[in-house]
Amino acid sequence: MNDKDVIIAIDALGGDRAPEEIVAGACAAAKSFGCRILLVGDEARVKPLLQREGNPLNVSTVHAPGVVAMDEAPTAAVRRGAETSMGKTVDLVREGLAHAAYSAGNSGAFLATAQIRLRTLPGIARPGFATAWPAIRGPMLLVDAGANVDCKPEWLVQFALMGTAYSRAVLGVADPKVGLLSVGEEETKGNALTFEAFPLLAAAPINFIGNVEGRDLLLGEADVVVCDGFVGNVALKTAEGTSEYIFTLLREAIQKSTRAKIGAALLRPQFRAVRKRMDHREHGGAPVLGVRGICIVGHGRADAHTVHSAVRMALRAVRQDLVGSIARMLEPPASAQASS
Amino acid sequence: MNDKDVIIAIDALGGDRAPEEIVAGACAAAKSFGCRILLVGDEARVKPLLQREGNPLNVSTVHAPGVVAMDEAPTAAVRRGAETSMGKTVDLVREGLAHAAYSAGNSGAFLATAQIRLRTLPGIARPGFATAWPAIRGPMLLVDAGANVDCKPEWLVQFALMGTAYSRAVLGVADPKVGLLSVGEEETKGNALTFEAFPLLAAAPINFIGNVEGRDLLLGEADVVVCDGFVGNVALKTAEGTSEYIFTLLREAIQKSTRAKIGAALLRPQFRAVRKRMDHREHGGAPVLGVRGICIVGHGRADAHTVHSAVRMALRAVRQDLVGSIARMLEPPASAQASS
Repeated sequence: MNDKDVIIAIDALGGDRAPEEIVAGACAAAKSFGCRILLVGDEARVKPLLQREGNPLNVSTVHAPGVVAMDEAPTAAVRRGAETSMGKTVDLVREGLAHAAYSAGNSGAFLATAQIRLRTLPGIARPGFATAWPAIRGPMLLVDAGANVDCKPEWLVQFALMGTAYSRAVLGVADPKVGLLSVGEEETKGNALTFEAFPLLAAAPINFIGNVEGRDLLLGEADVVVCDGFVGNVALKTAEGTSEYIFTLLREAIQKSTRAKIGAALLRPQFRAVRKRMDHREHGGAPVLGVRGICIVGHGRADAHTVHSAVRMALRAVRQDLVGSIARMLEPPASAQASS
Repeated sequence: MNDKDVIIAIDALGGDRAPEEIVAGACAAAKSFGCRILLVGDEARVKPLLQREGNPLNVSTVHAPGVVAMDEAPTAAVRRGAETSMGKTVDLVREGLAHAAYSAGNSGAFLATAQIRLRTLPGIARPGFATAWPAIRGPMLLVDAGANVDCKPEWLVQFALMGTAYSRAVLGVADPKVGLLSVGEEETKGNALTFEAFPLLAAAPINFIGNVEGRDLLLGEADVVVCDGFVGNVALKTAEGTSEYIFTLLREAIQKSTRAKIGAALLRPQFRAVRKRMDHREHGGAPVLGVRGICIVGHGRADAHTVHSAVRMALRAVRQDLVGSIARMLEPPASAQASS
């Protein structure tokens, strides 16, 4: 499908910096990529911002008066349905009026809304959040990054199948290596969940390489790493925090010496390139894998730049038929084995 | 107690780089700190190395012919008792012949040996590994860093009490703030374990500040963070891996430009200082909290420098009566409340 024919629904009121940054990012993306964008939210708030951006022809608004609060219980948000900007954004995908949905609002509420309004694919118990990490060897996909804090072993297998489909279709990895996040590389290392999941993963129609450790997330061989959403979320935020910590320490050390300040000035392009690689704003968001529609969860602190990246991510997912790719991975084992 | 009167037992055959690096580090520490060191292991292997170091007067050997393999099952290692260098090292503490034990060998085996040969303190179900992180505000102690992969909620409370005692006694924090590692700051965010642990921690005689997230480990307010050992191990290794990743990316980027090479040369002291702060070799090891004796688990890749740091850590723990400090934290709530 040509990008010009793709329609992306964006929750204009979701996120700490909504609606200003969301509208600005949506308009920038519409200009860059030529796709159509539906900005969903209270038109009294969204239209003036859109006017400020020059009312691009390929951006339009869809009215929804309510806003899901960042601390609102997911079940409460789901009950409000299409009255909220988030609920309406998802409903546009459900009704076939948009090809993908993006929200940087309450991620638990977005997940629950996607799960209930779009439903999960056959063979999927729970959708998972996927995040692409800028690992040394290339993009590494972590599933689940926080959707399911307590998991059953078979859910990790579903994450592995979906992650493999995403890695192939969207990230272009031909035969993704799948690792199980644990506390040691040996099969004998792990907790109750990983011990049960290990043989299931070994028997699944994926390229399972065994246990991987926290340090392998950015330095290792795996293209897809599966774990429960509690561990995935802690790992993701630990990596973000460590990166910020190192650059903070370097900045402080540099301030104390003129010689170092000159060195830092000469190194500015390199510092910037490395920071950019680690910057969540570059990566757009975390796709919700396992629902019958493309949904991208934005970072709560998303700004215009992040929204722009998220639209690029959504377009790639639409172009590569992400949902169809996942559905094919989940077909009964017999056909999966026949094709391998 | 004067450092000269302290005796540290060191497993000379434990670790990837044993016995050479362990013996070298032990001798360097004996020289720096003036304490007595017992090098435990096969004398045929240890004595020649000791001779190469000039046979320092305050370092002696204790013979134990066996070696615990890095992949040996902890139960098997425990059964071999004082026949192994690791078992004998722990037994020297048990028999009152040493004040502290250090091993960079199989950490699961060392933990099990310490737990069974020294026994746990009253009120402790399971010992935990503590690791001090070089956080922005000062040392942050993470408990459990990998001893117990599946935890009960009350164990997290025990980790919090022991961590508070360690932070006070050894790290010198007057009133340590204790956080619970979770996936969001709100009390409503977490998994089954943290939901149960939260009210128990809130009721414990500690300075509990609520949930903290992965990014708070290095950037946040907490002096002690508790979690199960699976999550703690993943977080620890993710932080290590992220640090290595960033310096690798910077190094690669710098190699591509002469201008950047000059900048990097000017910044060398700052790079070195930040790397050193993150370097596990500087921190010595992870104390086993909750057993009736001071045991320090070394990093498997420990070299002479790490062993030297570990002896410094052990001396501080002996000087501050770590085991007594923990035991006092564990006294029945009535007296704990009266003293607060």
